[in-house]
Amino acid sequence: MAKSVSAVGYAARDPSGILSPFNFSRRAVADRDVQFKVLYCGICHSDLHSIKNEWGNAQYPIVPGHEVVGVVTEVGAKVEKFKPGDKVGVGCLVNSCRSCDQCADGLENYCPQLVLTYNTVLPDGSATYGGYSDVMVADEDFVIRWPDNFPMDKGAPLLCAGITTYSPLRYFGLDKPGLHVGVVGLGGLGHVAVKFAKAFGTKVTVISTSAAKKKEAMEILGADAFLISRDAAEMQAAAGTLDGIIDTVSAQHPLPPLLSLLKAHGKLVLVGAPEKPLELPAFPIIAGRKTVAGSMIGGLKETQEMIDFAAKHNITAEVEMIPMDYVNTAMERLAKADVKYRFVIDVGNTLKAQ
Amino acid sequence: MAKSVSAVGYAARDPSGILSPFNFSRRAVADRDVQFKVLYCGICHSDLHSIKNEWGNAQYPIVPGHEVVGVVTEVGAKVEKFKPGDKVGVGCLVNSCRSCDQCADGLENYCPQLVLTYNTVLPDGSATYGGYSDVMVADEDFVIRWPDNFPMDKGAPLLCAGITTYSPLRYFGLDKPGLHVGVVGLGGLGHVAVKFAKAFGTKVTVISTSAAKKKEAMEILGADAFLISRDAAEMQAAAGTLDGIIDTVSAQHPLPPLLSLLKAHGKLVLVGAPEKPLELPAFPIIAGRKTVAGSMIGGLKETQEMIDFAAKHNITAEVEMIPMDYVNTAMERLAKADVKYRFVIDVGNTLKAQ
Repeated sequence: MAKSVSAVGYAARDPSGILSPFNFSRRAVADRDVQFKVLYCGICHSDLHSIKNEWGNAQYPIVPGHEVVGVVTEVGAKVEKFKPGDKVGVGCLVNSCRSCDQCADGLENYCPQLVLTYNTVLPDGSATYGGYSDVMVADEDFVIRWPDNFPMDKGAPLLCAGITTYSPLRYFGLDKPGLHVGVVGLGGLGHVAVKFAKAFGTKVTVISTSAAKKKEAMEILGADAFLISRDAAEMQAAAGTLDGIIDTVSAQHPLPPLLSLLKAHGKLVLVGAPEKPLELPAFPIIAGRKTVAGSMIGGLKETQEMIDFAAKHNITAEVEMIPMDYVNTAMERLAKADVKYRFVIDVGNTLKAQ
Repeated sequence: MAKSVSAVGYAARDPSGILSPFNFSRRAVADRDVQFKVLYCGICHSDLHSIKNEWGNAQYPIVPGHEVVGVVTEVGAKVEKFKPGDKVGVGCLVNSCRSCDQCADGLENYCPQLVLTYNTVLPDGSATYGGYSDVMVADEDFVIRWPDNFPMDKGAPLLCAGITTYSPLRYFGLDKPGLHVGVVGLGGLGHVAVKFAKAFGTKVTVISTSAAKKKEAMEILGADAFLISRDAAEMQAAAGTLDGIIDTVSAQHPLPPLLSLLKAHGKLVLVGAPEKPLELPAFPIIAGRKTVAGSMIGGLKETQEMIDFAAKHNITAEVEMIPMDYVNTAMERLAKADVKYRFVIDVGNTLKAQ
């Protein structure tokens, strides 16, 4: 019988969310498995929610991280897509049922039995552990091929933040030149949403509570316009101008001002999930045949497509690179939105065996 | 100068909503106008809301009625589509700007300057008056050609209730054989929604608070299944089975049980407008890429298409025919949902000159 893989990572042990070194085992490399050395891992806001048990589903210890890139070190006997030395990535999910309609359609992210990259306990009692660790083992079907010459450090966040915004832009038809797309919130998700929307050829307006973000949104990210959501006059002047909006805000916020920005038949897509229900007035959506929808990450096929598109269009995240032992400070800063725009952990160079 | 047209109708004069005989004038028949004798007019719930000023926009006197059918008696010099003797219908709107994107796309119902069939005061100070009257004058572009051999009495309600449900079934792609569509609420709108959805070849489940409606829904309207929305076990058993839902309920009601009925990527379309905002939980729509949208009546081209489709498939409303002077009693009964399923006023035979 093959031997399990020794691993070291950083884990939270309780709702304090404090991360500390953790020695554990990965499963032995099975026939269809890929083992890879982790080089970089992005810090997603979900990681923070999870380690502090803010979603109420924590199963400690938790090794977070679902924006993971690295280099293949070993492959199982039946692996066809990868060989040692290949650059690869793993995003938010590492398995699914593979037999439902969603899986058949390449929408494993909507499979009722999807297995998340971390904080999932499997039927056999084992748990999934994420990318804040030196090594990963994953089924090749859930591993992304990294494009040649595409930066691994600044590209890593696309495996969650990128696909989470790329997928709804595509699915809801907001990827056509000539359209005008709004992006609400300019954090990890929002800033890459701007870049993808621009690459699709749309006009992009950022909607934010913070006037301080205007200069960067337009000069660095390439947005065409900027609205301060609390400025009623500015919002009113822009009423009825947007074909769609990607709303990345997970704090409670009012929908009516956003619905007003939409043209008739416009679409407001939520990718951030406020805990409490939002208030949805029926009349504005009826009178303008408007849509409020949601979208959650993306399937494997589309994630590969997204990474290839990003590489082609030089789309990467804006990142602040940190060493592994800075992670707890990074979490404190993330909680205050004090990051432009994504922390990425330099796992390969800074995570040492304990 | 052409002479204005003398008309008699039933009007509400104040928020009591009591309707009484009212002598007034229609505009003189202009070059592109069609004048027709009203034969039948359906009673829509909007009529009740309007005459009681429940939407706060009443401009009395109000002659309601936007499910109007009749026979052409005169046409303007430049009318091309109609001639005296033709059977015609008028629905919810009688004009629009004709120059905006919506009008260009045949979506006059979403034109910011749409003119409703009644209770709209025009720039020249004149008001629109609806079909609870003996005669109407309307621009030919807003007049529907009535199909040969299609009943005018039972067909009249389709001009609002029909297009209001047909249009979202089509626009949101819920018109394909093999799909499974839910219809919430079995009133004037809901009962024709069932018929259209069946004619499109979908499986139809009615969702209602009232178990008493089950037998009729299935035996008379042709629904395939029936769910009592307050029966949690029954609703749970049907979770994840519907591709889309047409929600016709204008009373306050919870969305989460309906969202649960949807498959991933399913669409909940509101056509009834509760006054207060609905509570929309973000997580279920994100996790299943679900849509909550609205839809309001339909454009003229689609209304003609709908009527032709109804004629072809023998789709009519289930109606209770009443004389004009029964209208106040009918309104009282409508307020209690005591009608199966639409009152239609026999205007032609029972509205007499005062």
